[in-house]
Amino acid sequence: MYKYLNSISSPTDIKKLSTEELNILASEMRDAILNRLAKKGGHFGPNLGIVECTIAMHYVFNSPVDKFVFDVSHQSYPHKLLTGRVFGFTDENRFDEISGFTNPGESEHDIFNVGHTSTSISLACGLCKSRDLRGTNENIIALIGDGSLSGGQALEGLNFACELDSPFIIIVNDNDMSIAENHGGIYSNLKALRESGGKCERNIFKSFGLGYKYVENGNDIESMICALKEVKEYKKPVVLHIKTTKGKGYENAELEKEKYHFFGPFDRKTGEPLYKNGKESYISIARDFAINKIKNDKDFCVVCAGAPSAIGFDKELRDMAGAQFIDVGIAEEHAVGFTSALARGGANPLFVTYSSFIQRCYDQMSQDLCLNNSPATILLSNASVYGMRDKTHLGFFDIPLLSSIPNLIYLAPCCKQELICALEWSCKQKEHSVAIKSPGGAVVSDEENNYGDFDTLRYKITKKGQGVAILALGTFYKIGLELHSELLERGICATLVNPRFANGLDTQTLDELSQNHSTFVTIEDGVLDGGFGQRVGAYLAKGGKKTYNYGFKREFVDRYNLPELLELNHISAKQIANDIL
Amino acid sequence: MYKYLNSISSPTDIKKLSTEELNILASEMRDAILNRLAKKGGHFGPNLGIVECTIAMHYVFNSPVDKFVFDVSHQSYPHKLLTGRVFGFTDENRFDEISGFTNPGESEHDIFNVGHTSTSISLACGLCKSRDLRGTNENIIALIGDGSLSGGQALEGLNFACELDSPFIIIVNDNDMSIAENHGGIYSNLKALRESGGKCERNIFKSFGLGYKYVENGNDIESMICALKEVKEYKKPVVLHIKTTKGKGYENAELEKEKYHFFGPFDRKTGEPLYKNGKESYISIARDFAINKIKNDKDFCVVCAGAPSAIGFDKELRDMAGAQFIDVGIAEEHAVGFTSALARGGANPLFVTYSSFIQRCYDQMSQDLCLNNSPATILLSNASVYGMRDKTHLGFFDIPLLSSIPNLIYLAPCCKQELICALEWSCKQKEHSVAIKSPGGAVVSDEENNYGDFDTLRYKITKKGQGVAILALGTFYKIGLELHSELLERGICATLVNPRFANGLDTQTLDELSQNHSTFVTIEDGVLDGGFGQRVGAYLAKGGKKTYNYGFKREFVDRYNLPELLELNHISAKQIANDIL
Repeated sequence: MYKYLNSISSPTDIKKLSTEELNILASEMRDAILNRLAKKGGHFGPNLGIVECTIAMHYVFNSPVDKFVFDVSHQSYPHKLLTGRVFGFTDENRFDEISGFTNPGESEHDIFNVGHTSTSISLACGLCKSRDLRGTNENIIALIGDGSLSGGQALEGLNFACELDSPFIIIVNDNDMSIAENHGGIYSNLKALRESGGKCERNIFKSFGLGYKYVENGNDIESMICALKEVKEYKKPVVLHIKTTKGKGYENAELEKEKYHFFGPFDRKTGEPLYKNGKESYISIARDFAINKIKNDKDFCVVCAGAPSAIGFDKELRDMAGAQFIDVGIAEEHAVGFTSALARGGANPLFVTYSSFIQRCYDQMSQDLCLNNSPATILLSNASVYGMRDKTHLGFFDIPLLSSIPNLIYLAPCCKQELICALEWSCKQKEHSVAIKSPGGAVVSDEENNYGDFDTLRYKITKKGQGVAILALGTFYKIGLELHSELLERGICATLVNPRFANGLDTQTLDELSQNHSTFVTIEDGVLDGGFGQRVGAYLAKGGKKTYNYGFKREFVDRYNLPELLELNHISAKQIANDIL
Repeated sequence: MYKYLNSISSPTDIKKLSTEELNILASEMRDAILNRLAKKGGHFGPNLGIVECTIAMHYVFNSPVDKFVFDVSHQSYPHKLLTGRVFGFTDENRFDEISGFTNPGESEHDIFNVGHTSTSISLACGLCKSRDLRGTNENIIALIGDGSLSGGQALEGLNFACELDSPFIIIVNDNDMSIAENHGGIYSNLKALRESGGKCERNIFKSFGLGYKYVENGNDIESMICALKEVKEYKKPVVLHIKTTKGKGYENAELEKEKYHFFGPFDRKTGEPLYKNGKESYISIARDFAINKIKNDKDFCVVCAGAPSAIGFDKELRDMAGAQFIDVGIAEEHAVGFTSALARGGANPLFVTYSSFIQRCYDQMSQDLCLNNSPATILLSNASVYGMRDKTHLGFFDIPLLSSIPNLIYLAPCCKQELICALEWSCKQKEHSVAIKSPGGAVVSDEENNYGDFDTLRYKITKKGQGVAILALGTFYKIGLELHSELLERGICATLVNPRFANGLDTQTLDELSQNHSTFVTIEDGVLDGGFGQRVGAYLAKGGKKTYNYGFKREFVDRYNLPELLELNHISAKQIANDIL
């Protein structure tokens, strides 16, 4: 189907092509990428923008002896196309054989599993140092987008790189965008560099002691080949700063860069998404809460770290919120320190991030926030097995992660109404640092019950029975309900509990239940190790009670099939009923 | 005793003094600081260097309406002296009434509890933003040392600061030192700025979009007052870069800056420490292992993040190790990414850090390291209740922190020989990412037993009995031994187990033990929530076994008395025996 792309089975094949042929290859690659994106969705803008650079990298260097490290690696589709994985873009039946990120399991040309931002420079520094210790001489190239530069690890890496004192190329792919617009002083410097053709005196990369070269048109293969050949000869770390167009080659994506950063399946002709996503979600519920709160409390503000989508704030809403919406850029550590101080200073901040990224600021959650008992609210979106399903973006490690932090109140609401109550309560109180684990999956609405406040650490007994007590936390409260029915059918009237607190032990309730219950079941939307159930189980074990914990095995599952994963971990009413009977 | 210092009960008192009087005050403050340091020990160089700057800050600004945020806050002694806490330096009986860090519990002039580095800019940004939202106009000043600038959160904060677009002063206290020498490109820029009197074109702070002013002599009160008055008028964020002398005013400290960064009690006349610390420690054991390994394996290297003391490598040893010892500066996130890639690239890296600082790189431990199964070794020093005792530096949160990370093998050796076996095994194998929790307290030596390898996840039954099984992990294996004896005296021959794996469940051993044991005891040198014991307890709870978990309550204990803390948590053979009988 493609004249050149189909004939490329490894990067060496492209070295034979002329510039003209390489340009046709680029078009073919873009077409293949759009084919996958239209049918499956994925990272859009980052991949379309980096096609020419990737061709030039493989043309000039000799992968996998020379090593490419992609930041986030959401821009690795062109690289995959040139390293034997065309099928993943052209053959719909084989789409699932490749992931959206670099993956050593797929190819020797992929050096790391990567999905979080700002890591490429650190990782590449390690490869350089290892090379230098072993005395070999392969080339190491890190490719990082401008948006990722604001992350602490990227800046730490930039600072360290010059210590290597040996060849190392850092390509800074500057498309003047993060997921949304960029935030921070470094971006005014990148702008000045772009506008001066790389010549302005003030140069952050040089300030970090690095060599520097600028490429005006990073979407031009010839310029890129020429520049890469030049920096290949450098004996010290150098930044190759290239200007590219995010979404290059697909007009809608070039025009609406934020919308097309990641995009679901769509119609290639019209650009319209195939599935409209206007339904209520836990994100839209939090968004609506925040909009209302912004209007009615001038001290309230929303903080996000480069991903306003975590609370559904598009450009229009951000503009409406004005000073009360602060995107600090990709900088989760700073975000938490900043949020803690906002609270300390008398404002009323809500920091929202995806569960997978709260991992990036544990120390700040502990030291900046909870050690100071700052009354701020931290909302975790997609904190569920229903969230992102790549092994790099799992949303079910947050309970063990946050539960050992002293002072933190950590709530796990089970439905829309309880989520709203949790947000309202937390944003009103001034005593505690609070984290809220947003439920996942389809929205559960319960207008019958009053979820009240969280002033005292008490579980809610929602159905009284005896013999078996079910503690079903957060998202999985609904499985608790199903289990309750299932047991009723089998002649057992169990007690059902909504624990509400992901890290709190309501010993009073547990002690009372112990009097007429011999078997306890915990169900949680998280890994078991260090989670809610083990805490409850360990407490009850002192009294010799039988406890069964349900949750997930500690493993990096990748692009899982949800029903299969649930079944494998015995998380269904039927399986649990069978287990305990 | 002091002419001026004793008359200062609040910062307003110093505003009446002349420059000459302020200079005498500075001498008196230095004397008071040395008095405390000589008798109690503490952070030496950072405090002596910042006396004049602190006087000028309190002279020009109006604390606590104006707010000072100290980075790490190990340089806050002069601030404490000027804010009503002279007694903490002059009255030996009251030394313990103040901590070595800022502490809102002590004074309204201390805004945050802080002990980890690189947070001040983030925190101060939050105070600024909160001020701007509320519409007040107090001054906010962050004080950060050059060493802390390499940390990710500091760089994230520097990048964000210009977004504030309102008054904000960042004082960069540049004494050309971290704890040890500085590492990274930013330091060559600081050097160029110092050498050019702040005039050189390449200026990292300006590159971040910030205003900039340089003070040549940051130890001169008049210059500092003049400079602070000037930047106080700025309407936008500005960096005041000041050059100071670490250890200023105490010759030994000025000469040996690394040695005198933190120093124990000493003789003021000779500078000699009162207590020689030449004894074998778990740190010296790891150090000796590393020295030997460096000599015999050219691919082996030690990585540290600004604290070479965590493995006892002084300047001489670092020079000996050459390229095989890499201090990346204060940059734990980068350190882990770097280490993972070193392993991936074929080197054999050992990253060593204090337990309290592993908190700063959870995401890198998860994503960069363990998701990639990179065969690197992470050694946690002071990973024990015997380690640092300030609430900011607790060393017993690492088990819950690391135990939920998939793929990680996490060892908790109980004595010298087992620690060496763990290091040897880990640095030889190429299958797993391994963390080792170094024991704490006085070194336990056991030459009788062979600790072998860790190829299979099996606990070691060290004494066979029945009825009661004691699982005593790591440092607290010795308490297990004591408990075993205690129970013997009471007529019970218990089974004693050395679990060795902090995050692993040896279900085979537990199942076997379940056959003739009805009561299980776990003891661990860590917080209980999410720890080792709860995992074991939860597993056994399925079979209705009684399990008693011993460890620490989840709280930020501060400058604890160890015997008291152990007693409070019932961690002694006698108490446990009483509990279970």
